[in-house]
Parts: sequence; structure tokens; C-alpha cells
Amino acid sequence: MRALQWIGPEKVQINDIPVPDIGPTDLLVKVGAAGVCHSDLTLVNFPIQLREEPLTLGHEIAGTVEAIGSDVNGREIGERGVVYLFWTCGVCRECVSGNENVCLAAGRVAMPPCPGLTMDGGMSEYVRIPASAFVPIGDLDFLQAAPVADAALTAYHAINGAREALRPGGTAVAIGIGGLGHVGVQILNAISGVRVIAVDQAQEKLDLAADCGAALGILSGPDAAKEILDLTDGRGADAVFDFAGVDATARLACETVAPNGAYRMVGLGGGAPEITAGPAGGPGWPWGATVRKSLGGTRSDLHACVALAQAGKLHMEVERFDLADGPEALRRLDAGHIRGRAVLVP
Amino acid sequence: MRALQWIGPEKVQINDIPVPDIGPTDLLVKVGAAGVCHSDLTLVNFPIQLREEPLTLGHEIAGTVEAIGSDVNGREIGERGVVYLFWTCGVCRECVSGNENVCLAAGRVAMPPCPGLTMDGGMSEYVRIPASAFVPIGDLDFLQAAPVADAALTAYHAINGAREALRPGGTAVAIGIGGLGHVGVQILNAISGVRVIAVDQAQEKLDLAADCGAALGILSGPDAAKEILDLTDGRGADAVFDFAGVDATARLACETVAPNGAYRMVGLGGGAPEITAGPAGGPGWPWGATVRKSLGGTRSDLHACVALAQAGKLHMEVERFDLADGPEALRRLDAGHIRGRAVLVP
Amino acid sequence: MRALQWIGPEKVQINDIPVPDIGPTDLLVKVGAAGVCHSDLTLVNFPIQLREEPLTLGHEIAGTVEAIGSDVNGREIGERGVVYLFWTCGVCRECVSGNENVCLAAGRVAMPPCPGLTMDGGMSEYVRIPASAFVPIGDLDFLQAAPVADAALTAYHAINGAREALRPGGTAVAIGIGGLGHVGVQILNAISGVRVIAVDQAQEKLDLAADCGAALGILSGPDAAKEILDLTDGRGADAVFDFAGVDATARLACETVAPNGAYRMVGLGGGAPEITAGPAGGPGWPWGATVRKSLGGTRSDLHACVALAQAGKLHMEVERFDLADGPEALRRLDAGHIRGRAVLVP
Amino acid sequence: MRALQWIGPEKVQINDIPVPDIGPTDLLVKVGAAGVCHSDLTLVNFPIQLREEPLTLGHEIAGTVEAIGSDVNGREIGERGVVYLFWTCGVCRECVSGNENVCLAAGRVAMPPCPGLTMDGGMSEYVRIPASAFVPIGDLDFLQAAPVADAALTAYHAINGAREALRPGGTAVAIGIGGLGHVGVQILNAISGVRVIAVDQAQEKLDLAADCGAALGILSGPDAAKEILDLTDGRGADAVFDFAGVDATARLACETVAPNGAYRMVGLGGGAPEITAGPAGGPGWPWGATVRKSLGGTRSDLHACVALAQAGKLHMEVERFDLADGPEALRRLDAGHIRGRAVLVP
Repeated sequence: MRALQWIGPEKVQINDIPVPDIGPTDLLVKVGAAGVCHSDLTLVNFPIQLREEPLTLGHEIAGTVEAIGSDVNGREIGERGVVYLFWTCGVCRECVSGNENVCLAAGRVAMPPCPGLTMDGGMSEYVRIPASAFVPIGDLDFLQAAPVADAALTAYHAINGAREALRPGGTAVAIGIGGLGHVGVQILNAISGVRVIAVDQAQEKLDLAADCGAALGILSGPDAAKEILDLTDGRGADAVFDFAGVDATARLACETVAPNGAYRMVGLGGGAPEITAGPAGGPGWPWGATVRKSLGGTRSDLHACVALAQAGKLHMEVERFDLADGPEALRRLDAGHIRGRAVLVP
Repeated sequence: MRALQWIGPEKVQINDIPVPDIGPTDLLVKVGAAGVCHSDLTLVNFPIQLREEPLTLGHEIAGTVEAIGSDVNGREIGERGVVYLFWTCGVCRECVSGNENVCLAAGRVAMPPCPGLTMDGGMSEYVRIPASAFVPIGDLDFLQAAPVADAALTAYHAINGAREALRPGGTAVAIGIGGLGHVGVQILNAISGVRVIAVDQAQEKLDLAADCGAALGILSGPDAAKEILDLTDGRGADAVFDFAGVDATARLACETVAPNGAYRMVGLGGGAPEITAGPAGGPGWPWGATVRKSLGGTRSDLHACVALAQAGKLHMEVERFDLADGPEALRRLDAGHIRGRAVLVP
Repeated sequence: MRALQWIGPEKVQINDIPVPDIGPTDLLVKVGAAGVCHSDLTLVNFPIQLREEPLTLGHEIAGTVEAIGSDVNGREIGERGVVYLFWTCGVCRECVSGNENVCLAAGRVAMPPCPGLTMDGGMSEYVRIPASAFVPIGDLDFLQAAPVADAALTAYHAINGAREALRPGGTAVAIGIGGLGHVGVQILNAISGVRVIAVDQAQEKLDLAADCGAALGILSGPDAAKEILDLTDGRGADAVFDFAGVDATARLACETVAPNGAYRMVGLGGGAPEITAGPAGGPGWPWGATVRKSLGGTRSDLHACVALAQAGKLHMEVERFDLADGPEALRRLDAGHIRGRAVLVP
Repeated sequence: MRALQWIGPEKVQINDIPVPDIGPTDLLVKVGAAGVCHSDLTLVNFPIQLREEPLTLGHEIAGTVEAIGSDVNGREIGERGVVYLFWTCGVCRECVSGNENVCLAAGRVAMPPCPGLTMDGGMSEYVRIPASAFVPIGDLDFLQAAPVADAALTAYHAINGAREALRPGGTAVAIGIGGLGHVGVQILNAISGVRVIAVDQAQEKLDLAADCGAALGILSGPDAAKEILDLTDGRGADAVFDFAGVDATARLACETVAPNGAYRMVGLGGGAPEITAGPAGGPGWPWGATVRKSLGGTRSDLHACVALAQAGKLHMEVERFDLADGPEALRRLDAGHIRGRAVLVP
């Protein structure tokens, strides 16, 4: 079968590889669509040869059950679904509490095992997955479903984890209206009554945000913080979701989050916020505000995202590419030329 | 009446001033005891002349109702109580939600009005307070009750706000076993089932922590982070409460908080934690961990603290001083020579 | 001034009474609109002479500040607002925790003091209120604002208190699409991602529910429970809000709430649900489901409702009556002939 | 191997049966101890022949890993642990949210599959379990560990689910100080700062409750409700846990739960509480109070209970029986003659 593989720093290519075998607790999934994510770029552009053998990319996978392991219950050939992206131990204190994204087995700062990043993923015709990672989607379109598996999941986890700050009458800021941000705006509207302010450096992204339900759009720049403070009586936003993750957006978040507010660094971007405990009453970090670097989401979050998509409350803005054009999709994402999410179809 | 007043940078003295008048919604309280807090030092040592007129210190106040405003219901002469330390607007979105410590009227980074810091406080024979700030204590000893009004309150608010991270089987680290820290250890034991590890630079403070229920004590120093990680299988502590607030303790907190854990900067100390969103999987800030600079507490928190003290679940370690010896108490606190809390008695 | 007053069992009339005096912590409000609620009927139709003197009805009040007590801060003549309906002690453990609707002063089963039910209310030209009960509404229309003060508040409190059960992918049932129910449907859509099923005995009420965002409507009757179970794979609804409150709706709720679901009896209606702890696995109350009789809401809830209305996320279906026609409005409400909420204008 | 089996209504006997085979995702556990539970009696005394073949009893299992399925990771021969009692689908919305005890596969009112109740359990020398049900206990004594798997788990789930009601200054009532109740008292003290009042019909059970940390004990009887109300200023208890489950205890709970309080029916007992939505302000169900029939617990709860036991915060009162004396243990439990929990040792 064909697979889009990483073979070394900045090198990807389509290779012909065998269809994977499956074990007793696995499923073989025929891939219907696989989303392209900034974290794919992070891997592809990583300057060091991480391992010798090629790695099939793709952690945003939707498809059809093609074969079922001997010890799997409750699944059927032909069933349609998406794939949860962390393949964790399943039995530690965190996994059984529904916090698989911080599975104890990953240690203190590593990411749990993830197809397409730490083992073969789904930018291929077929993919082997543990049966527990499969979440049914009914008749949801694969092009819509694939980005649910990470773009929506990651945005949802960050937003749902800041729920206490999302009271009616409050304001949320979404910085960066790309693959995650445009769905983040929709999730905020779907599950809370806050006003959403979008921030991006391109007017067309603000237009996309408006289509997604943002009440206001602000072009990033030196005045953005002041505009947000003016719109919130000087108090700041109850929640700031940074979907971009660079130093400038971290600074904007610090300057605009309200007391008891939530600042969330979403996804695998960077950015180093300056947070200080003092001086008391000084121009520092507001009292009671929290900052958190959110990672992916939980299986429960994925169920929620699938449900929102099925109910028509999430619409992914998608650009479709053939699997063979995967390298081109990566290049265009790197250049910032994708509106919403690029999705590959084998 | 006598009052301990700040009169300029590093200058305090006992002055004779009039007993304050009260308005229709006020109480006049005869002070039974007033605690001495690090934030008093922050004010006293502030290098700038903040205002011309003297300011009576004291925001940790316990006493007896001496007179009652004409429009106050439900209070009685002779009733014993403590005084809630933020005198806020009472009607904004935050005040009516039980978040008075972030009253909208204070704006984005200021502290709400506080007796002894922004207006006359309780290190005096009598103090005027708004009736809504009075919380009854029954027959709780004034020396015990005064520190409840801030030391316990502030520790409780930080701990209770991190409740999700305080599951049985988890570990909490308390850094700095002074006035706040020694009661923080007790609160952790009273309201959660976590294991408490105390950190301080003095063995006698660790001994105090052990008396307060800490399971383990670690001397601060270059090995402290490694010791905590070793005690938590490399995962880190589910919650880290920094009661000291300097750069070294901020660093220790960052190095030892677990994924999805809670790092809380408690009180008016400083310290600038280094938090970064990336690089992914690098030696950075653990996924899902939050940092928060907690301020004082709410009136609801104060009710909880009074109840814990009345039930014998909190015992303040106290050094008693006459009001006239207030300047000496401040000096000894500044030198780090107070075990627990210094309390003045008029 | 004119006032609509209860003077005895089933007797109401318009009386001419003096404009009330105000105390130092009060406001005098010029009434802009006052909503008519089923609990007004409960009072009016009560078969016993509750007290000798007449009682001005009206606990859903919107209006303008006309005079300000001497000890009130932060309010301005001419300011527009709504009135929080429980005038509670303000200092007990529950009041300071933002749970004023269960103020300790009310004891175990009584309702806190409420204008129009236990003292003079707002179906009059002017009304005296404690300043703490005033919540600003900006330029929100009075006809829209008045029902926010109880119809929206009560629905919001019940819904927000069941938040854990309102996950995306879940189903909520709203029984009774009257003054509370039609706004309950809107609140569910505004603050959660659940699917809403409306139940009523009149098709026109189901049409109203559809306008308010209900996904499905079911006519009440012997098949309603089965229809709901069929729509939820036999599992039942994650939340059932009974805005009607009779035995038949209590039975429907018990038959259709899911495991870990929330059944909420909203408002002052009745209905006696049959709940039993056993037999194990029998046709009983589902595991983990909760039942709760929700009362009004909190001041924090009122801020949330005003914000939703200001943001255009709540639209009250209103029938306008002159104050003089209040008796007619009560009669029509009693007969079930009001679409949405009747509102009186002095 | 020997096994204590149910063979028909009120008939149990020790049989010699084969050691079970295990599949690729199973473990074979050598049983160290198995607790005897009231739900065993419910099954044994059930008047109908539930199935033809004998059923090995026992759902409170502690033991040692004896053999490991081919597809199991992370387990070792000789590892000591307890067994989670619901063997659920693992992939539904509830299972992945950490709510396995209400697994969708069980439908609306049934209990999920449970060893010893719906399939062969652990009152035998060996037991086959799904690997995902195994929770390590380190060197915790088996006699202590076995009751953790249900008695502690079930009490913990009910208590932890009522956490919002368990504020310092509050009061919790524990009715029935048997296998669940005596550990419930300990859990309340370990994870909250409430005052615990124990209720039982035997003074010796109240003595046991006092040993477990109850502040007060009340003999059940006609005055019990009044005593509880007197102890809570007429307000009632913030939480009432009914570990007995008969009509009299349901009535006591209804009469003593406070507004916004939590009444929890724990375990598989019965009792039909009378709850009514009205009349308003009448002698009915307090505003805001919830009632819930709690079932077992979650895997996350089991981790918490094991941790509390390991930390010495839970001590099970245990009577030890040889496996061969299982029938006698059941008889004595039925007669109310067990202090704490009966545990069988193969």
C-alpha cells in the first residue's frame, strides 16, 4: 500500500509498504481521510535524524473497520470511525480517570505514544490501531471527521478545561484562526455563552472566524492588547486561547487575561509567557488567573467532538488533497496558505 | 486609643488617635488580637512615601462587637468574631459569585481595599468595619482566631482552588513553613487525603511541619527537586504551594509539579517562574499543569477556616506580643525569627 | 401610586397607595415592567387569608433608579436594571458563598423573603428595594428584562446546576413550554451542546419550543416516555427539566432520566416523583441519577441571565398588559392562555 | 480447586471445580482474600432459580498474579492487587469518561457485569479476570485489601460524588455502621473537614463509628431526626449517606437533609424516600437538596481507596474466615453479627 513517510530532516515521500498485521486487540482500518497538522511539520522539520527507519505520518485519522482482532468485542467490519490519537497504557491512575493524555507511562514531560509522531500513522491506505482507540462516527463525512480527531479534540480539551471561566457575560479571546482556532471559535459558541473575540494577523482569517461565530475580530499588532482591554472595561478576557504559540502571542495573552481568568497554550506551538508573582499590585500577572499548556485531549473529549460534528455544530473548513499530494499539502501549511485544515485522501 | 501606625518608609510607631465613628452599615469592633503578616512588612519597608497621613496597620483582626450601625441587622453587642479582609463593592459580578477577592472594582491587577494596607486597620484598641465583614467565631480564642483571618484564609483559598489536583494517592508540596505554610499543611490534611511534603531551609520549620501533619520534610537546596521527583516516581507533585515566593522557590515549583498538577503562588511574595510552551516533549512545563497567583480568599473561605479552627482541625502556632511591642514583632518577623504567627494584643 | 394588590383568597385589585419611603441602604425604583408568574397565581389562589393587610404583587421587576439611600455607593439616578428576587441576610455561610436562594435565615424548608410573595412587590408605579438587589441591564428593553428576573433566572439556575450532565452528545428534555420552559430551551442551547427535546400538551407550545431551538417536540401523553427512550437508545435523557410540576410530569421524568442523569423539578409547581432504592437491577430509579427541587436562582445567575439577554441569546416571548389589566393577565395565565410570559406595564 | 458456589435459592456449598483458563487479555489471580458483602446475601436469598449452573460467589477480591495473557502489557507474575468489580465494555462514552459503573452496555437500570453476581467470582482459590480490572496494592495486607474492592469503593464513590456538599463547617450523617458505613466514616474524615454523625440501632456499632472518627453517635429511633436537626440549628445535615437502605432510613434521610444538601442511597439496599416538589414552603423536600442512588464506584475511585488504605487512612474492621467456612460467614452476616466486614481466605 502507499504511505506518506518521513525519512529524515525535511524529507518526506510516498513509499510502497506492506499492509500492517494486526494483533488480537487491534483493528485494521481502511483510511478514509487523514488530516495534516502543524505537529506533522514540527516532526518533518526537526533538524535531527530521529530514527533510521521511515515513519508513516498521520495522527488525524478517519476510516472504516477492515479487519478485527480475535479478542475484540463490539466492533463490526465496515463500521466508520475516527482514531483517538494517544495509545496509552489504559490502566494507570490517569488513564482510568479519563486523563489518558497525561498517562503516567509518559513520565513527566514526554507525550504519550502517538501514531504518525512516535510510530506509524494513518497517511496511508490502511493503518493498524488498538481497538480501544476507535470511536464510531455514524455517517459523518470522512473529510469532516478526520480533523475532529485532533484539531477539534485539542481545541475542545483546552476550552472544556477552562469551563469555570466561560460564564455568560464573559469574553474569550481566540488567537490564531487556523486549523485549531477556527474550530475553537465554533466550540466556544457551541458549549458556552461567552462573547468570542478572534485575533489573527490576516483579515481573511478574521473573516473565517466571523463565519465561525466570532463576535469581533482584531488584527494582531501593537494595539491588539489595548483593544481587548477596552472591549472588557479594562478588566481583560475571562479566557485566552493561544492557538498560535509564539512569544508575541504569549505576551498578548499575559497582557489581556483577566483576574481569575484562564490562559491556555494550545497545541504543540511554543511561546514563553512572562509570569511573575509580584510585586504586589504591580503591573504583573492578574490575581487568580491560571496558565496551562494543554495537550491533545481525552477519549471522552473525542466523543464530545464527534457528537458536536454529528449535530452540525462543528464545521471543519477543509482543503482536500490526494495522498500523493501530501508533500505539497505540508509545504502549503508551512507557508500559512491553508484555510482551515488540509486533509489527505488515499 | 492606641494604634500601631505606619508613618513613612520603614517607620512605625504607637500613636494615640480617636476611636473611629461608625456609619449606619458599620460595626465598631473592640480588638481582641491582631496578627502580624509579611504583607505588613511589604508595606512598612516600601521605599516610597505612599501617603502623608499615618496608617493604622493590621488586617488580621479578631474582636468583639462594641457598637452597631443603625441599619445593621442580626448582630449583637458583645458578639465575638473575625474580620474579612477585603472590603469590596458587594454588587459586581464577582462579588455576588463569592469571588470578592477579585472584585471588579479593583480593576485588572490591583488588590481590593484592605484595612491595614489601604486604609486604617486593626492594630489598635478599636476598629471600624463594614458589618458585612464580620464573621462570628463563638468562643474561639482571639489569639487563635486572628491568624485565621488571613494566614489560614490565604492558605485555604489556594488549596481549595486546587482541589481537583488533591486526590487520594497524590502528593502536595508545601514550600515555606511560616505563618501561612504551617497552617497550609494542616488544611491539606483536614480537607484532602494527599501526602504532604514540607520544604524549608530550617530544620526547626520542618519539625513544625511534622507537628502539623506533614508526612515528610526536605531541606531546601540543590537536591530538593530531585528528592521530590524520587518520592513521586519521577512524576512530580500533584500540587505545589509556594508560601515563600522567591525565584528559588518558583524554580523548585516548576521543576517538581506533575502533569495536570497545580502550582500555586500564595500570598504577596514574589518569584518569577519560567514557564514555556515548548519545545514539545522537551524539558519544559509539564502538560496540563497550571500556575496561579492566589490572593487572600473569599468570605466563604473565611467561614470554612473558622469552622476548621472551631472543630480543632487547625491550630495556629502563635507568639503573643502586646500592642506596644508591635514594632519589635515586625522586626523579628523580618529577621525570620517568628515560629508560626506573631499576634498583637491591645 | 397605583398597585396591583392581593387582598384575600382569589381577590386582587388595583389600589391607590403611597409611594414607599426608603432607608439608607435602599433604592426607590420606578417600575418599567413587572412579569406575571405562576407563583403569583399560587399566592392569589391560596385558600387561606394569609394576612390582613393587602400585599402588592410582583417579583419580576425591571425599572429605573428614582432615589438612592444615603449609604449606597455606586448607583446613579436613572440607571436601568432588574431586581433580584430574594432579599436575604447577606452574611450567612450560604449568602457569602453565592447561594442566597438557600439563605440560612429561611430555615430548612421556607423560601427566603421575596417581594410580591412575602412583602410588597413591584406591580406598582414604584417599589422600594435593597440596593444590593439591583442588577444593571444597560439599554435592554424593560419588557424583555422583567421576565429575566425570575423566568430566566429560575430556568438558568436549574440548568446550570445540572451542568455536569449536559455534555455534547447528550440529550435534555424540557417539559412544559410556558414562561420558564421556553426560555429554558434557549438557555440550554446558549450554554451547552446538548440536543433539546421539548414536551408539552399543546402543539403550539411545541412550535414555540422549535422557535427557541428545540431539536424535537413530543406531545405529552401515554407514549411520550417510550418516544424519549427510543430517541436515546433506551438509555434515557441526560437531563430532564420539569417546568410543569404535576404528578404526570414527575412520572415522565422518572421514566426517562438516564443513569447519572439529572432530573430537576423547577419552580414552585408540585408533583411527587416515585423514587426507590431498589430492588437491585429492577425497573427502578437509574443508578447515579439525581433529583433536585430547584428554587429561583442566585444573584450570580441573574448576572448571567442579563448578559445572555443583552447578547441576544435569550428572547422572551411576551404579552404586554397595562398594570390596570393585571387581574385579566392573571386570569389568562390561570387558563393557560399566555404564550410565553405576561408582563405588566404601569 | 475449591470454590464457594451458589446453586439455587438459599443454597451455597463448597465445590471442587477446575482452575479457569485465561484468554490473551486476561490474568489468572491466586486469591488471597475475598470479602463477603450484603449483595452476596441478596443473590443467595433470591427466591428464584436464576440459572442452572452453579455460580462462584465473590466480588471483593485481593490476590496475586499467577498467569498473564499473551496480549497483556505491564503486569508481572507475583504482583499483588485487588480486582475492580465491574467488567465493562471499556469503549463507550461513559467508560472512557471514567464512569464505568454506568457503562452504556448495561442499559438504563441493569448493573454492569460483575464477578460473583453475574459470572464466576473470587471466593475460590483462583479467579480469571480481565487484566484491565487489576489494581496493584504493593504490600497491603490481603485481609485489608479485599474489602477495599467494594466496601470502601462503594462508600468512596457515594461520598466523593457529594463533594460539593462536604464543606468545612458542614455535617454529614452516616446511617448504618456496617461493612460500608464504618469505612464511610473514615473516608469522610480522610477527604473532607465535615463533622460526622453516625446513626445505628446498636450501641456497639456507634462505638465502632467513634473509633472510626465519628464526632457523635445517635441510636436510631423516633427521636433520631429531631436530634440531628437540633445538632444542626434546625437546618439539617449537608449530606446524609444511607448505608442501610430500608424505608425507615430513607425517611430519616428525607427528614434531616439540608437545603442544597446531598442524600445518597448507597449500595444495593432498598428504601423508598418520599420526595415531593411541593407545596411551596411546606414540610417537603428542602430546596436544592439532591437524592441519588449510588452504584459501586469507578476504577479511579478504586485507585483512590487503595491509596488511602496504603497511607493508613482506612482501616477495615475484619473478621477472618476460612473459605470452607464461607456458608457460616454468610449466615452470620445475615443475622447482623459481623463487626465490619467478613473476609474469606482460601
